[in-house]
Amino acid sequence: MNTRIEHDLLGDLAIPADAWYGIQTQRALDNFAITGVPISHFPELIRALAMVKAAAAGANRELGVLDSIKADAILAACDDIIAGRLHDQFVVDLIQGGAGTSTNMNANEVIANLALEKLGHGKGEYRHLHPNDDVNRSQSTNDAYPTAACLGVQFAAEPLVAAIQSLKTALETKAAEFADVVKMGRTQLQDAVPMTLGQEFEGFAVNLGEDIDRIHEACALLCEVNLGGTAIGTGINAHPRYQALAVKRLAEISGKPMVPAFHLVEATSDMGAFVFFSGILKRFAIKIGKMCNDLRLLSSGPRTGLAEILLPPMQPGSSIMPGKVNPVIPEAVNQTAYQVIASDLAVTLAAEAGQLQLNAMEPMIVYNLLNSIKMLCNACSMLEERCIRGIRANREQCARHVDHSIGIITALVPHIGYSNASRIATTALTSGATVRELVIAEGLLEEIQLDRLLSPQAMLAPVQEVL
Amino acid sequence: MNTRIEHDLLGDLAIPADAWYGIQTQRALDNFAITGVPISHFPELIRALAMVKAAAAGANRELGVLDSIKADAILAACDDIIAGRLHDQFVVDLIQGGAGTSTNMNANEVIANLALEKLGHGKGEYRHLHPNDDVNRSQSTNDAYPTAACLGVQFAAEPLVAAIQSLKTALETKAAEFADVVKMGRTQLQDAVPMTLGQEFEGFAVNLGEDIDRIHEACALLCEVNLGGTAIGTGINAHPRYQALAVKRLAEISGKPMVPAFHLVEATSDMGAFVFFSGILKRFAIKIGKMCNDLRLLSSGPRTGLAEILLPPMQPGSSIMPGKVNPVIPEAVNQTAYQVIASDLAVTLAAEAGQLQLNAMEPMIVYNLLNSIKMLCNACSMLEERCIRGIRANREQCARHVDHSIGIITALVPHIGYSNASRIATTALTSGATVRELVIAEGLLEEIQLDRLLSPQAMLAPVQEVL
Amino acid sequence: MNTRIEHDLLGDLAIPADAWYGIQTQRALDNFAITGVPISHFPELIRALAMVKAAAAGANRELGVLDSIKADAILAACDDIIAGRLHDQFVVDLIQGGAGTSTNMNANEVIANLALEKLGHGKGEYRHLHPNDDVNRSQSTNDAYPTAACLGVQFAAEPLVAAIQSLKTALETKAAEFADVVKMGRTQLQDAVPMTLGQEFEGFAVNLGEDIDRIHEACALLCEVNLGGTAIGTGINAHPRYQALAVKRLAEISGKPMVPAFHLVEATSDMGAFVFFSGILKRFAIKIGKMCNDLRLLSSGPRTGLAEILLPPMQPGSSIMPGKVNPVIPEAVNQTAYQVIASDLAVTLAAEAGQLQLNAMEPMIVYNLLNSIKMLCNACSMLEERCIRGIRANREQCARHVDHSIGIITALVPHIGYSNASRIATTALTSGATVRELVIAEGLLEEIQLDRLLSPQAMLAPVQEVL
Amino acid sequence: MNTRIEHDLLGDLAIPADAWYGIQTQRALDNFAITGVPISHFPELIRALAMVKAAAAGANRELGVLDSIKADAILAACDDIIAGRLHDQFVVDLIQGGAGTSTNMNANEVIANLALEKLGHGKGEYRHLHPNDDVNRSQSTNDAYPTAACLGVQFAAEPLVAAIQSLKTALETKAAEFADVVKMGRTQLQDAVPMTLGQEFEGFAVNLGEDIDRIHEACALLCEVNLGGTAIGTGINAHPRYQALAVKRLAEISGKPMVPAFHLVEATSDMGAFVFFSGILKRFAIKIGKMCNDLRLLSSGPRTGLAEILLPPMQPGSSIMPGKVNPVIPEAVNQTAYQVIASDLAVTLAAEAGQLQLNAMEPMIVYNLLNSIKMLCNACSMLEERCIRGIRANREQCARHVDHSIGIITALVPHIGYSNASRIATTALTSGATVRELVIAEGLLEEIQLDRLLSPQAMLAPVQEVL
Repeated sequence: MNTRIEHDLLGDLAIPADAWYGIQTQRALDNFAITGVPISHFPELIRALAMVKAAAAGANRELGVLDSIKADAILAACDDIIAGRLHDQFVVDLIQGGAGTSTNMNANEVIANLALEKLGHGKGEYRHLHPNDDVNRSQSTNDAYPTAACLGVQFAAEPLVAAIQSLKTALETKAAEFADVVKMGRTQLQDAVPMTLGQEFEGFAVNLGEDIDRIHEACALLCEVNLGGTAIGTGINAHPRYQALAVKRLAEISGKPMVPAFHLVEATSDMGAFVFFSGILKRFAIKIGKMCNDLRLLSSGPRTGLAEILLPPMQPGSSIMPGKVNPVIPEAVNQTAYQVIASDLAVTLAAEAGQLQLNAMEPMIVYNLLNSIKMLCNACSMLEERCIRGIRANREQCARHVDHSIGIITALVPHIGYSNASRIATTALTSGATVRELVIAEGLLEEIQLDRLLSPQAMLAPVQEVL
Repeated sequence: MNTRIEHDLLGDLAIPADAWYGIQTQRALDNFAITGVPISHFPELIRALAMVKAAAAGANRELGVLDSIKADAILAACDDIIAGRLHDQFVVDLIQGGAGTSTNMNANEVIANLALEKLGHGKGEYRHLHPNDDVNRSQSTNDAYPTAACLGVQFAAEPLVAAIQSLKTALETKAAEFADVVKMGRTQLQDAVPMTLGQEFEGFAVNLGEDIDRIHEACALLCEVNLGGTAIGTGINAHPRYQALAVKRLAEISGKPMVPAFHLVEATSDMGAFVFFSGILKRFAIKIGKMCNDLRLLSSGPRTGLAEILLPPMQPGSSIMPGKVNPVIPEAVNQTAYQVIASDLAVTLAAEAGQLQLNAMEPMIVYNLLNSIKMLCNACSMLEERCIRGIRANREQCARHVDHSIGIITALVPHIGYSNASRIATTALTSGATVRELVIAEGLLEEIQLDRLLSPQAMLAPVQEVL
Repeated sequence: MNTRIEHDLLGDLAIPADAWYGIQTQRALDNFAITGVPISHFPELIRALAMVKAAAAGANRELGVLDSIKADAILAACDDIIAGRLHDQFVVDLIQGGAGTSTNMNANEVIANLALEKLGHGKGEYRHLHPNDDVNRSQSTNDAYPTAACLGVQFAAEPLVAAIQSLKTALETKAAEFADVVKMGRTQLQDAVPMTLGQEFEGFAVNLGEDIDRIHEACALLCEVNLGGTAIGTGINAHPRYQALAVKRLAEISGKPMVPAFHLVEATSDMGAFVFFSGILKRFAIKIGKMCNDLRLLSSGPRTGLAEILLPPMQPGSSIMPGKVNPVIPEAVNQTAYQVIASDLAVTLAAEAGQLQLNAMEPMIVYNLLNSIKMLCNACSMLEERCIRGIRANREQCARHVDHSIGIITALVPHIGYSNASRIATTALTSGATVRELVIAEGLLEEIQLDRLLSPQAMLAPVQEVL
Repeated sequence: MNTRIEHDLLGDLAIPADAWYGIQTQRALDNFAITGVPISHFPELIRALAMVKAAAAGANRELGVLDSIKADAILAACDDIIAGRLHDQFVVDLIQGGAGTSTNMNANEVIANLALEKLGHGKGEYRHLHPNDDVNRSQSTNDAYPTAACLGVQFAAEPLVAAIQSLKTALETKAAEFADVVKMGRTQLQDAVPMTLGQEFEGFAVNLGEDIDRIHEACALLCEVNLGGTAIGTGINAHPRYQALAVKRLAEISGKPMVPAFHLVEATSDMGAFVFFSGILKRFAIKIGKMCNDLRLLSSGPRTGLAEILLPPMQPGSSIMPGKVNPVIPEAVNQTAYQVIASDLAVTLAAEAGQLQLNAMEPMIVYNLLNSIKMLCNACSMLEERCIRGIRANREQCARHVDHSIGIITALVPHIGYSNASRIATTALTSGATVRELVIAEGLLEEIQLDRLLSPQAMLAPVQEVL
C-alpha cells in the first residue's frame, strides 16, 4: 500500500497515500474499533460538520483572522462535502474517546486536504493550509462538535417528521374507511362499551401526530449552540466578535434558526437538549409501540383471537404450520421501539457522566440519537407501507362482538337503572343470552326503544341527545 | 371493633363503623398491600380528586342531572377535603390494579359519607346519596382519575419549581461571591484553560434554572384533560354539554388553565403527557446529579484531591478516621437522582403497557411521578440549605493550580505559535518547571507581557481584546 | 420536649431525652429527609446490623481488645435487638449520604445506650461505653455496613423464596386440575397448535420455580463479606486474627455460611453481588410479569376476548359499567414487576458510581434491594391467594377454539402433505368452514382417521406414536 | 440483474439468480430494513444455526424420517457453513418480525441450495430437496432458532472470556509492578488511609476476573435447549425419539454440553437464560466502567488533578490546547459500558413482552446479546493493549500525597487516642502542617516511633503486628 507520512505530538505515522483524512484520524482508527459503525453511517452529521467549518471559516475571513485564499478554499471544500463528496472518508468509529476530537479532526483533515487540492497542493502539505490552525481556527472540538451534533440531529429529524406525518395520514385514511364499523371498546382487556373502529384509528393518528410538535420543540432547543465558546466556554483564542458572526453564518448556511447559547460555560458541558430530544424519541417509541401492541391484539386469530382487523400478509409465518401468517411488521416496530427506549438509557447514562467543563461521553450520545432517529424513521415507513395501508376491518366479527356483548348494557343504565342493569348483566354472563333478549324478556324496554338505544348513533353519542 | 355492613356485586362486607370510606375502598385495602404507601402520602392528589368531583357535581347540577341538595352537599364535602380534612381516609395502596378505580372509589365513598353527614344522614346510608350514582355521576374512573392525576402532578410541581428557583438563587449568590476566583478549567478531567469559580457556579445556576421552563411546559401538556370522556372516550352516559361545563369549572376551582382534550378516545388511553413530565424530571435529575458529582470532585481532598472548594461539614464522616468529613449532602442528592431516573423507567414500562382503550398501569405512573417530584423537592431544599449556602472557595489552591498549570499556555499560542507552545508544554510537564519560567528562560516573551497575557482578565476574555 | 446534650466534632446537639439513638443519628435525621422511609421499614436489616455488632464484640472480647464487661453488655443489647426490641429507634432515612455511616452509627448508638442501661448507666453516658470506641471497635462503616447488608438481603429473601414456592405449588395444583383441558396454543398471538391448559400452567410453575435456585445462588455470593477490612480493605486498626474470628462468629449467629472475602480491597468497593442479586429479582419480575400478562390475555372477555380462563372476581370493576370485573390482581403484579425492573436500574446506576476505594451510593442499593424483595414477596402472596387459587377453566370456550381452529391442520401435514394442507387452511379461513369439514369433503381422510388424528392424545404427543 | 422465480403462499417473487438464499429470505429483506445490520455481522450465530440444522438432519436420518442422500447433502452443506462458507448469504436484518422465522428460513434456504449443488441440482430446484420439508424437518423456528441462539451466544462468549482473562493478567502484572508504591486510599473522594497502588490494581484484577465465573455459569444455563419442542413445545410432528437424538448430536457437533430442556412448553417461551446472560454482561459493564472511571480520576492532571498514575498517550487530545493528552481509551470503554447497560434494558423490555407460547421479540434479544458481547470483547482488548500495559505510576506524587495526608493519623489512634487524633487532624487541616510535625511538636510520639508506625509496612498491615 502506498503511504504518506504525517507527524503529530506522538511522532510519525504512515497514512494511505490516497486517504483524504490525516494522522489524527488514522490514530483514532487504530485506537477505536468498538461498534464498527463509522461516522459516514450518518451523512447528516457530516453535512453538519462541514457547515460548522464553513461558518467558522467565513467568520474568520470577515474578522481578518484567516486570509481569504485559505478561507475560500476551505469554504469550497465544505461545499463539496455538504453536497455529498468524500463522505466515505469519515471513517472513525462513532463510539470513541476524546469527546468528539477524533470526529472533529476527521472533518478538519478531510477539509484541509480537499482545500489543499483546490489550491493546487498535495495531500498532507499542511504548511499551506493546516487542519488545526486554519480549518479549526477559532474553534475547539468542545464547541465545534456539539454545534455540529445539534445541527445534524435536526437534519436527521426531518425525514422522521415526514415519515410520522405520512404514517399519520395513512392512519387517518383508515379511520375514514372504518368510520362506520361499530365495535366493542375494551378497558383492561375486558369488554367495555361500543365505539367505532374509525375512532380507534383516529386515536392512533392523533396520538402519533402530537409528537411532530414535540420533535419541533426539541429541535428548537437544539438551535442554541455553544459555537464560539472554544475550549471551555470562555472563548479563549477567539475574536470577541467571532461568536456572533459564526453563529449567524451557520444559521444562513444551514437554514436553521441557530442562536448563540445564553451561557457558554454552561452550554459547553450541558447535554440537556440532547436528553430532551432523546426523551421525545422515547415518548414516540412508547406510543408507536403501544399502537403496534394494539394492532397485534386486534388482529389476533384468525379463529381464536379478537380478529377485528386483518393485517396484510407480508411473508409466510411458519415453516411448520401451513397457512399461518404473523404480524411481522408490527413486531419489528415493537422491537425498534424497545431499542429506542434502551438508547434513551444510554443517553441518560452518558449525560449524567459529564464532569466539570465537558462531557467526554458526547460521541455516544450523538450516536444513539442519530441511530434512534434512523431506526424510527425506517420503522414508520415500513409500518405505513407494509401494514397500515393494507389493514382491513373484519366487519362481521366487530358486529358479532357488539351483538354478544354485555357491556352495551351501560347504555341502558339511565333507562332501566343500575340495579336492573347489574342483574341482567350477571344473568347474561351465566346464561349466554344477549342483553337485548333479556331486556325484552323482562319487558323492561320495547324492541323499538332498544333498537334506538343500542344503535351505533345512540351508543357513540352522549345518551341524552337521542332520547 | 365496631363495624357497619356494606354491599356490592360481590356481596356483603364489614367496614369499620367510623370509617369514612366504604366497601370498595375496603376491598381494595384487602386486595392490595404492595408498597405500604397510601394515597394520603400525596395530599395534592387528594385535593385534585376532590376538585374533579366538585367540578363534576357543579356541572351535573347546572345540567339538572343532579338535584341541588345532593350537589351542594357534595360540593361542601369536596371543599372540606380540599381544605385538608379527612386525608387520612385515603388509605388505598398507591400500587393497585384496576387503573385507579380503587382510588376513584375511595374518593367517591369518602365524599359521599361526608356529604351524607352534611345532609344529616349516617355513614353508609347511600340511598340518600350514592358514591357511584351521585358523586361519580357522569364520570368513569377512566376520565376522573387521570384528570385528577394531571391536576395533582401540577400541584406537586409548584413546590418543586419554588425549590429549584431558590436553589438557583443560592447558586447565583455563590457565583457572585466567587466571581474573582480564577481557577483552572478541566476537560476530560485534564487541565484545560483558566476560568473563574464564579463562572462555574453561574453555569450550575443557568443549567438548573432552564428546567423551570421545561417543568412549566410539561404542566401545560397536563392541562389538557379527558374529563367528560367517561368510560372509553365516547362520553357514554354524559350529557352533551357536560364536558365543556365540567372542565370549565375544574379550571375555576383549581386555578389551572384546564382545557378539554382534543380527541377523547385518544386521550383516555394516552400517557404521553405523563411520560413527557417524567422525562423532564429525569433531565433535571441528570443535571443536579452532574452538579453534585462536580461538587464532590471539586471538594475532594482535603490534601490529596482537587480541594478547590470546601463544603460545609454536616456530620462526622467516619467512625474510624478522626477528622474525616464527607460530602454527604451531594451524595444523598446523587442517590435521589438515580432514584428519579429509575422511576422514569417505571413510568416508561407502564406507559408502554397500555392496551386498547385504557392503560391499566396508570396508578404506578402517578405514584412514580408524585414520588419523584417529592424526592427532588426535598433534595433541592436539602442541597441548598445544607450545602450550597455554606460552600467556601479555597482561593489559595485555585491560584496555585493556575500558577502551576500548563494549560495556560493556550493563551500564548497566538503570540509564540503552536509549535513553540507544544515544545514548552512538554518541557514543563517533564521538568516540573512552570510555563511562565520556561517562556521567560527562552526569551519568547517579556515578563510584563506575560503578566498581561496570563492575567485573569486576559485569560478569561477573548485574546484580541487585551493585546 | 426533654432533651439531653451530646457532642461530636461539629459541636453540641440536643437529643430527645428518651431517644436510644444519639448525636450522629440526630444529625442524619436533620440532614436527610428524602424518602420518608426509615431503616425500621426493613427489620431484617436491623437484625443483620445487630448480628454484625455482636460478631465484632465477640471477636474483640476473644482477642482482648474489648473487656468482657463491655463486650457482654453489647452482646446482650444485640440479642435484644435481634429479638425485635427498639426497632423503632432506627430512624434514619434509607437514602442518605455517607455510604451508610448514618445507619451504622444509628446501630452503634442504639446498641451503646442499650448496653449502658444493662450496665446501670444512663443514656448518653458514653464514657462508660462508647458507640465508636466500643460498639464499632475494629470496624468501619465500610465493612460493617455492607456485611450487614449482605446478611439482611439474605434474611429478606427467605420469605420471598417461601412465597415463590407456595405460588409454584398453587400453579401446579391448577396444572393438575386443568390437565385434560385441550386448548389452542398461540404463537405471536396467532392460532398455532393444540396443547392443554394444564401444560400452560405447568409452564408457569416451572418457569417461576427456576428462580428459587437463582435466588439461592445469589445468596451464596452474598455470603462472602468484607468484615475485617475496616476503612478501605487494608484492615487498618484491626487485630490480625480479627477478620477470621469475626466472620466465623457472624456465621454462627446468623446461621448463614458467611466467609471472608477473597480480596478485601476489592470487596470494599465492589457492588457486584448486589448487582447480581438485583438482576435475579429483575429476571423474576420479568417472568411473573409475563405470566400476569398471559393471565390477563387468557381471561380477556367475557364476550369479546379469549375467555379461556376465569379469574376470581375480587372487586367491582367499574363505577359506570354494571357487572364489569377486571383482572386487578395480575394488574397490580405487573405494576410491581415494573417497579422492580426500575429498581434494578437504580441499583445499576448506583453501582457504576462507585469511586476508588468505596461506593458512596450503597445505601440506595440496599434500599432498592430490600424494597424490591418486599414488594415481590407481597405480590406473590397476593397473586396466589387472590387470583391463582380461584382460577377456573372455561372448558367450553377452550373446546370451541380447538374445534374452529385452522392450526390443527398442522397435525395432518404428515398425512395429507404440506401443499394440500396449505390449500385447505386458506379455504377454511376464507369460507369459515372447519378443517375437519373440508378434509372430509375433499375425501382426503376418513372421519375415523380424523377422530384419531385430531384427538387430544394425538395432537399433544409426537405424531408417529399414534399412527 | 439475472433472477430466478420462487414461489410461496403469497405468490411468485424474483430472486437474484446467484443468490444462495430463497424467497422467504428475499421477502424478509424487502420487509425489514431497520438497523442495516445483517445476520452475517455475527458469524457465531451462523455457525450455530448450521450446527442445529446438522444435528436435526443427523437425527432425522437415524430415525428414517429423512433419506440418507438428502441428509448427507444437508450435513455436507452445514459443514461448509460451519467452516465459514457463504456467510455473506445471511442477509436478513437482525431486527425482524416473526420471532426469528426469517433467520431460520435464511439458514434453511442457503443450506438447501448448497445441498442441492452437492446433489448436482440448480439453485431453487426445491423438488429435489426442500428448505422446509427437508432442512427444517422435525423443527420449527420456535425451537431451532432459540437453540441456535443459545449456542451462538456461547461461541461469542469464548473470545470475551479470553479477553477478560488477558486483561486480568495485564492488571496483575501492573499490580506486581506497583506493589511497593504506597499511596493514599480514598473513600467518598476524601483522603482515607494508606494502601499500595499494587493493591488497587490487584482489586481491579480480582473484580473483573470474578465475572469469568459468572459468564461460565450463564453459559451453563444456555446449554438447556428446547430443540424437539417444535412449534409450541408439544413436539408436534417430531418423532418421539427425535428430541433426545437431536440434542445429543448437537452436543457432539458443538462441543458444548447441550441438554434437553426440562419442560418444553416452558422453555419455548422463556427468555430467562438470555436475561440472565444479559445481566452478567451488565454486571461486567458496571465493573469495567467503574475501573475506567477510577483510571481517569487517578490519572487526572497533569498538574491540577490526582495525577497518581500516567496513562500512555494514544493521540493528541486537543486542537486548541497544545500538549493536552486525554484518557481516550478509558472514555471509549465507559461509553461501551453504557451501551451494554442500555442493551440490557432492551433485552429486559423484549423478554417481558413474550405472550403465551412464544416470545416474538427474540431476534432483538439475540442481537443485543451478540452486540454487547462483541463490543465488550473489543473494549477489553483495546483497554489492555492501548492503556493498561502502558500505565506508569507517578511515585513522587503518591509519596507526596501520603506525606501530606491527614488520614494517616488513623494509624496513630491506638497509640495517641481518638481525642488527641481528632484535635491534631483539625489543626493539620487548618494550619497546613503535617500530622508528623504536629505529633512531634506535641511530644506525643518519638520520631522513631512515627517512622515505624507510618511506614508502609505498618500502615498496610493490622496495627498490632508491628508494635
